[in-house]
Amino acid sequence: MARDLEQQIALGRLLPGDRLPSERTLAAQLGLSRNTVTAAYRLLEKREAIRRVPQRGAFVRPAGPIENPIDWSSRISRQAHLLDEPVLDMLAQSRLTNLRYRLSAGTPALGCFPMGPFRRALHDVLNKEGVQTLAIAPTEGQPRLRRAIAAWDGAESSHVLVVAGAQEGIDLLARCLVEPGDRVIVDRPTYPGAIQAFQAAGAQLVEWDTKEWSAKALERLLIASRPKLIFTMPTFHNPTARTMEEDQRTKLLNLAARYRVPVIENDVYSRTRLQGSIPPSLYRMDKHNIVIYLSTFSKVLAPGLRVGWIAAPPHMVKQLSLVKMRASLFTEGLLQLTLATLLENGIFEEHLPRLQRTHAALQKIAVDALRLNFAGDELEFSVPQGGLYIWCRWRRPIDMEAVLLEAQQKGASVAPGRAFFAGAPDENCFRICFTACSERDLPDAIRLLADAFHAAGDPSDR
Amino acid sequence: MARDLEQQIALGRLLPGDRLPSERTLAAQLGLSRNTVTAAYRLLEKREAIRRVPQRGAFVRPAGPIENPIDWSSRISRQAHLLDEPVLDMLAQSRLTNLRYRLSAGTPALGCFPMGPFRRALHDVLNKEGVQTLAIAPTEGQPRLRRAIAAWDGAESSHVLVVAGAQEGIDLLARCLVEPGDRVIVDRPTYPGAIQAFQAAGAQLVEWDTKEWSAKALERLLIASRPKLIFTMPTFHNPTARTMEEDQRTKLLNLAARYRVPVIENDVYSRTRLQGSIPPSLYRMDKHNIVIYLSTFSKVLAPGLRVGWIAAPPHMVKQLSLVKMRASLFTEGLLQLTLATLLENGIFEEHLPRLQRTHAALQKIAVDALRLNFAGDELEFSVPQGGLYIWCRWRRPIDMEAVLLEAQQKGASVAPGRAFFAGAPDENCFRICFTACSERDLPDAIRLLADAFHAAGDPSDR
Repeated sequence: MARDLEQQIALGRLLPGDRLPSERTLAAQLGLSRNTVTAAYRLLEKREAIRRVPQRGAFVRPAGPIENPIDWSSRISRQAHLLDEPVLDMLAQSRLTNLRYRLSAGTPALGCFPMGPFRRALHDVLNKEGVQTLAIAPTEGQPRLRRAIAAWDGAESSHVLVVAGAQEGIDLLARCLVEPGDRVIVDRPTYPGAIQAFQAAGAQLVEWDTKEWSAKALERLLIASRPKLIFTMPTFHNPTARTMEEDQRTKLLNLAARYRVPVIENDVYSRTRLQGSIPPSLYRMDKHNIVIYLSTFSKVLAPGLRVGWIAAPPHMVKQLSLVKMRASLFTEGLLQLTLATLLENGIFEEHLPRLQRTHAALQKIAVDALRLNFAGDELEFSVPQGGLYIWCRWRRPIDMEAVLLEAQQKGASVAPGRAFFAGAPDENCFRICFTACSERDLPDAIRLLADAFHAAGDPSDR
Repeated sequence: MARDLEQQIALGRLLPGDRLPSERTLAAQLGLSRNTVTAAYRLLEKREAIRRVPQRGAFVRPAGPIENPIDWSSRISRQAHLLDEPVLDMLAQSRLTNLRYRLSAGTPALGCFPMGPFRRALHDVLNKEGVQTLAIAPTEGQPRLRRAIAAWDGAESSHVLVVAGAQEGIDLLARCLVEPGDRVIVDRPTYPGAIQAFQAAGAQLVEWDTKEWSAKALERLLIASRPKLIFTMPTFHNPTARTMEEDQRTKLLNLAARYRVPVIENDVYSRTRLQGSIPPSLYRMDKHNIVIYLSTFSKVLAPGLRVGWIAAPPHMVKQLSLVKMRASLFTEGLLQLTLATLLENGIFEEHLPRLQRTHAALQKIAVDALRLNFAGDELEFSVPQGGLYIWCRWRRPIDMEAVLLEAQQKGASVAPGRAFFAGAPDENCFRICFTACSERDLPDAIRLLADAFHAAGDPSDR
C-alpha cells in the first residue's frame, strides 16, 4: 500500500503539500485494517515521502532539494515590479562609467563646493563631539541641525524632520499618507522619483498640467478624483523649470483648504535662482496648516551629503519619524553636524551667490550651444530663471529612445522626457542638466547631443 | 430657484461633492423653462456655491476654508499606524536626554572605536577623491567598499549591496519579497525592527521558537503556513543571544530548499563573539542559493556609521537596488569610502579583538552585578558567548511595564521583552545591553534596575 501511494506521488497524482486521507478514512475506503494503513504511513514518513503533523493530518512532502530550488526572479513582489523602465534606463545611463558627459544627472556644480570650510567643520565636529557623532541618534535628526535649518528657514525646529535626501522624504510621506487605491494629484510632468514612491504606496496618479497650473483644471481634478494629496513643485519645477505665480499659489491653497486636501510642496530648487524674483513658498503662504514642505541640500551643496528635510506640523513629524525608524532608524550624524556648522557660521549663505554665478555662466554656455548646434525651429526650449535644467522638446516626429541612445554612445546622456510623466508621456521631450558638466566640456557635450539628433533625422534637413 | 438650492445646501440636504440634477432634468421636474434653471446655476457658480464641470455636471462646492481644514491625525495610512507601541516606548525611553544609563540601546562599546585611524582615513579619502566623494553615487554602494566587504567576507562584490544599516536592509527585503497577506516565519522572540518592517509590507508573522529551533516544528510551520520567507538570526540571536548549532542549520537549510522557501539570515552579531566557537553562517553553508545574508558595522564599529550590507544573488541585488533607489537613491559615500579604507588597511581586523576584550570585561561586570543585586532564583538569565545583550526573565508574576518605568525614572532603561514577540509576548522578559555603559557605570545601572524590581515586589521578598 505504501508503494501504491509512492507511485501516485511519483506520477504527480499526489502533489507536494497535498493532505492524505486520514488513516481511518483510507482504511474504510480500501477495506483494510487501520493498522495496515498506519504501518504504511509510518513507512512513508520514514522514507521522507510524507510528513505527519499532529492535529492536521499527513502531507505529501516535496522531493529533496534540487539544484536551484528558488527562482529568485519569480519571488519579487508586485510593488517592487512597479518600477518603471524609463527611470531605470535613465539611471543606468547616468551610471555608465565610460560616459564622458552626464547631462542626465541632477547635480549642482560641485566645483564651487566649499571644500575647505567643509573639512574644517568636519574636523571641528570630531574634535568637539568625538565618537558621540557615531552613536545612536534621534530619528528626527540631530537637534543642532534641526535648529539651524529652522533658524535659517524661519520655522520652528519641532516642525523639522531631517531625512536622507528629498527622495527619502517623498517615500516617507507616501508611506505615511497614501493607502492603496488613493488618488494623488501630481504635476504634469513631474519628478520620476515621486511617481515611483507614490505608485509603490499604491496611489493612482492624476496629472495637473504645469503649462497653466490652472485653478479651474485643479478644481475639476479635485471633484473628479477626490485625491488624498496634491504633490507639486511650484518653484523651478523639475523638469520644466517653470515657476507658479503668486496668484496661482493663492488659488491652489484656497482650493486645497476648501476641499481639505493636503499639499506637499517639493521645494528643492528655490535656492538655485539665477535671475528675477520668486513668490513666497506655499508653506510660507499657507494660513491653514495644510502644506507639508520638503527640501534638500542636494541641489545647492552636494547630492552626496544625503541630507534633506521635511517641515510639517509636529504631529506629522512624529508619525513620519515612526515610519523612518522602520525604514532606516536614523540619518547618519557626522555630516548633519558638519552641515549645521556651515549653516551656523554663514559659510552656506556665502556659498549660494557663488553657486548662482557659476550656474548662470553654465546656463549661458548651454543655451548658446543649443542655439548654435540646433537649427532655429527644430528644438523648443525656454531659458529658465533658476533650477539646474533646460527642458527641451523636439518639434517633429522622432524615435527619441534611439536618438538618446545614440547620444549616449557618442558620450553624452540626457534624461528621456517620458520618465517624467505619470500619464501618457510626451515622447518628444528630454531634460538637460546644465550644471553637471564643466564650462569647458558643456559645448562639446551639447554638440554630441545635436549630432545624434541630426544623424537620426533626414540628412537633407541639416 | 437659486435661493432654494442655496437653502438646501445650507440645511445640509445637498453636501459638498454632491452632483446636482442636469439642467434639463431639473427644468422638467420643476416645470420651469431650461433658461431659468441655467440662469440659476450660473448665479450659484458665481457665488461659489457650485462648480460646473464640462461633461460631468454641476457639483456642490465645499464652503470656504475653515480655520483648520485638515486634521492631520486622521490622515495617517493604516500601514503607518501598524507601528507597535512597545517599540515606540522603548525608543522613546532610549532617547530621554536626562537618562543616565541607556541599557535599552543596542550599541557596541564606543570607547574602543579607532577614532585616530578613522580620522586619518577620512582625511585621506577627502585628499584623494575630493568633492567626488559628495557626488551622485551608485545605489548598490561605493565599488571600493563592495570590493572590501567581499574580500573580507569571501564573497563576490557583485553579490554585495551596501545599505544604510541593517534596518534598511530588512525594509528593502520586505518591500521586495513580501506581498500583503504573505506569511513570514520569524524567530520567537525576534528583533522588533523586523516585526515592524515585515508587518508594514503586509506580512502575517509566524513564530519559530528559538528555545529549540526544532526542525520538526519548522516543517510543521512550513506545511501549515506556506510562508514566503524565513527570517532568522542564528548567531548570538537578538534578544536571546542563543546560537543555532550546525546540525540545526543543516536541517533548516534542507527544509528551506525542499519547500523552496528563501531564508534571510540576519547576521549582525557573529563578529561580537566573546568565547567558544560558532558554526559557519547559513549563507556559507548554503548549497542551493536560497540564503540572503544581512550584516552591518553598527554592532562592531559604531551604529552612527549607518553602513550595512546585503549579500544576495546578483538578480536580487539588482531588484533591491531598484527599491532602494525609490527609498533613498543611494547611501552617503564619504563614510563608505572611509570604512573601505579601514577594511583595506587592516585597522578593522585589529579593532575586533580589542572590542572583544572590552565587551568580555563589561559582560563580567554585568553578570556579577546581576548576581549581586538580584536574589538567586528570582531572575533567570544565561551568560551568552557573544552579542551585546543579556536576556532576562523574572520568574514570578509582575507588572513589568510599571517596573521598567520605575527603573527608567531612577535613571536606567532596559528594553521591554514584549517588543520582541511577533505573537503573544512573554511579558516577564527584558533585555539588557551590557555594552552601552562604561565599566564604571554598569554596576550602578544594574543596581538601579534591581531597586525598581524590589520596590515593586513584596518588601518581605528581599
